[in-house]
Amino acid sequence: MTHTNAKKIYGLVGAEAVLTEQSDLRQYLTGISTSFGYVLIDKSGTVFYTDSRYLEAAEAALAGTDIQVKQFSGTLENLLKDYKEIAIPAARTYYPDYLKLIDAGKKIVDSGKAFFEAMSIKQEYELEYIKKACEITDRAFVDLLPRIKEGMSENEVAAELEYLMRLYGASGTSFDTIVAFSKNSSIPHHETGGDRLKFGDVILIDYGCKVGGYCSDCTRTFLFGDDKKHGEFIKNYNHVLNAHMLVKEKIKVGMTGREADAIARKYLEEHGLDKYFTHSLGHGIGINVHEYPNISPKSLHILQDGMVFSDEPGVYFEGDYGIRIEDTIAFKDGKVLSLTDSDKQLIIL
Amino acid sequence: MTHTNAKKIYGLVGAEAVLTEQSDLRQYLTGISTSFGYVLIDKSGTVFYTDSRYLEAAEAALAGTDIQVKQFSGTLENLLKDYKEIAIPAARTYYPDYLKLIDAGKKIVDSGKAFFEAMSIKQEYELEYIKKACEITDRAFVDLLPRIKEGMSENEVAAELEYLMRLYGASGTSFDTIVAFSKNSSIPHHETGGDRLKFGDVILIDYGCKVGGYCSDCTRTFLFGDDKKHGEFIKNYNHVLNAHMLVKEKIKVGMTGREADAIARKYLEEHGLDKYFTHSLGHGIGINVHEYPNISPKSLHILQDGMVFSDEPGVYFEGDYGIRIEDTIAFKDGKVLSLTDSDKQLIIL
Repeated sequence: MTHTNAKKIYGLVGAEAVLTEQSDLRQYLTGISTSFGYVLIDKSGTVFYTDSRYLEAAEAALAGTDIQVKQFSGTLENLLKDYKEIAIPAARTYYPDYLKLIDAGKKIVDSGKAFFEAMSIKQEYELEYIKKACEITDRAFVDLLPRIKEGMSENEVAAELEYLMRLYGASGTSFDTIVAFSKNSSIPHHETGGDRLKFGDVILIDYGCKVGGYCSDCTRTFLFGDDKKHGEFIKNYNHVLNAHMLVKEKIKVGMTGREADAIARKYLEEHGLDKYFTHSLGHGIGINVHEYPNISPKSLHILQDGMVFSDEPGVYFEGDYGIRIEDTIAFKDGKVLSLTDSDKQLIIL
Repeated sequence: MTHTNAKKIYGLVGAEAVLTEQSDLRQYLTGISTSFGYVLIDKSGTVFYTDSRYLEAAEAALAGTDIQVKQFSGTLENLLKDYKEIAIPAARTYYPDYLKLIDAGKKIVDSGKAFFEAMSIKQEYELEYIKKACEITDRAFVDLLPRIKEGMSENEVAAELEYLMRLYGASGTSFDTIVAFSKNSSIPHHETGGDRLKFGDVILIDYGCKVGGYCSDCTRTFLFGDDKKHGEFIKNYNHVLNAHMLVKEKIKVGMTGREADAIARKYLEEHGLDKYFTHSLGHGIGINVHEYPNISPKSLHILQDGMVFSDEPGVYFEGDYGIRIEDTIAFKDGKVLSLTDSDKQLIIL
């Protein structure tokens, strides 16, 4: 239940008052997406201050919970005047906002760690939203494949895919959909454009959608026809797929991010591909498509039950092609669940 | 030309070095969209430091310009070690990042005002992107109308609209599309959902798309069939439309944001509707869908030639219906251009 999150954070932080104005953290506490507002938690309860644009929606969403909704008027200084101690997420607070609190004589406590760690362990209702987003993600990919035709642009393929996700109930995309044909696939963050699909092209699609404010994230790489020039590609594809699957097999609760990253990196190293694996293995997924924990060569974050994150090894041959295979996965009761799970055996359309 | 923006900002700020790590400001300086990187400008030139994910794309985009692209390695401290004075946008810099610079003995200069003011005056190439985004926005709306059928959900209408914008060349939406049927239209920021369209419903659609990283923003309100219960609605619709058009007629370069806002607010007041106009008249539009200037009852921002912003009066009757009519408009050579401009006479499907 969303409305228990405020109590949880208040308990973890242990300050006189907890102030939140970052949109993702506000969404975690209130369950609704808003572009302006303050959530203020103290020992007497939680109040969500927002403006007229969101008042009616917030009142409807929070009816029956112990979070009060009030229209923000006056100043933040006035809202905080009776507190000596305020918790804010320091690493997400802009300098002038911090300074105002200091100048007003407040003692500052950092709430950042409490938020990022609490948000990384998904509750049942959060996992349900992510599962639903992942189901839509898989279904849209399956239904996209027969719609892909020679001569379509990357933009047109992205349009079809996003349309299907919307139609199946997504509220939007998790990020700008990446569709990359041919050598564009060698750019890990290619900007989808007007290039048109030709027989024999590699197609890389990195996409995701949102349901209830929660994200999915998935990448598939496949071929548009077999022009018999793909021997090397197919060999490398299977190495990346093996690395991806090995992560799902070996990853365990209690590992650090870098231990998890090393599962894929070591496998690719054994096949001479580690120097082409130029990014991290994965990242936490939730309200934000990139959040705690990091699963990278340097990360000391501890993987825990309830976390949702990506498993996305990739290799990139500049000017030629790239391969990335990504699922959104979760630890649930100590087991690995693959929340996106459409077919990963090489597809040749 | 994008690559002259760094020189312009450097000249305006007047510090030894200008450091930029905010994604929208980075896009303004480099012309490309990235999720990580630092742009560092000093008297010898401009360097864009980014990671392996963006390196190839950045090199391609900035080839032939005087912006160098380098892979970021090491630490930010090391990058800045030879400078005594660093300019950063203070209001957009997180407290710990600010503190690190202070602790390293740097003199801090605020670059924020230079960025926000420079970005608010659109150059020819920026205006072209926004115009293109606005053309797609209008064309998608016109082509959406015959696709709207009884029983469709808000999500399905949003799916059709976003599909059309993508198909016509948009790289994505400016924000999550709002489609609101019936009483949902009385919530200024309604979250598009599963409600289904019935004969006689009010439909409010607030939407926009991106081209070349620049946004459009447009709202239309119309009727799905005339159930003969819309006398009051039609009267109020015409008042909102008159307020919207009056702004285009009366707004002038040199006015403050609050003088512009007052054009619509005063007209609505004369018709007893000002208490239902619960938000600002408008906001600047560019790389961000909400940027400088504000056009609100309190804004002292001065409207200038080259600015692009929204004209969006609205009235909201809680639990009943809402009306908002919004175009993206611009000052160009002292004249008002309506960049989105699809038909605003009341449409009854």
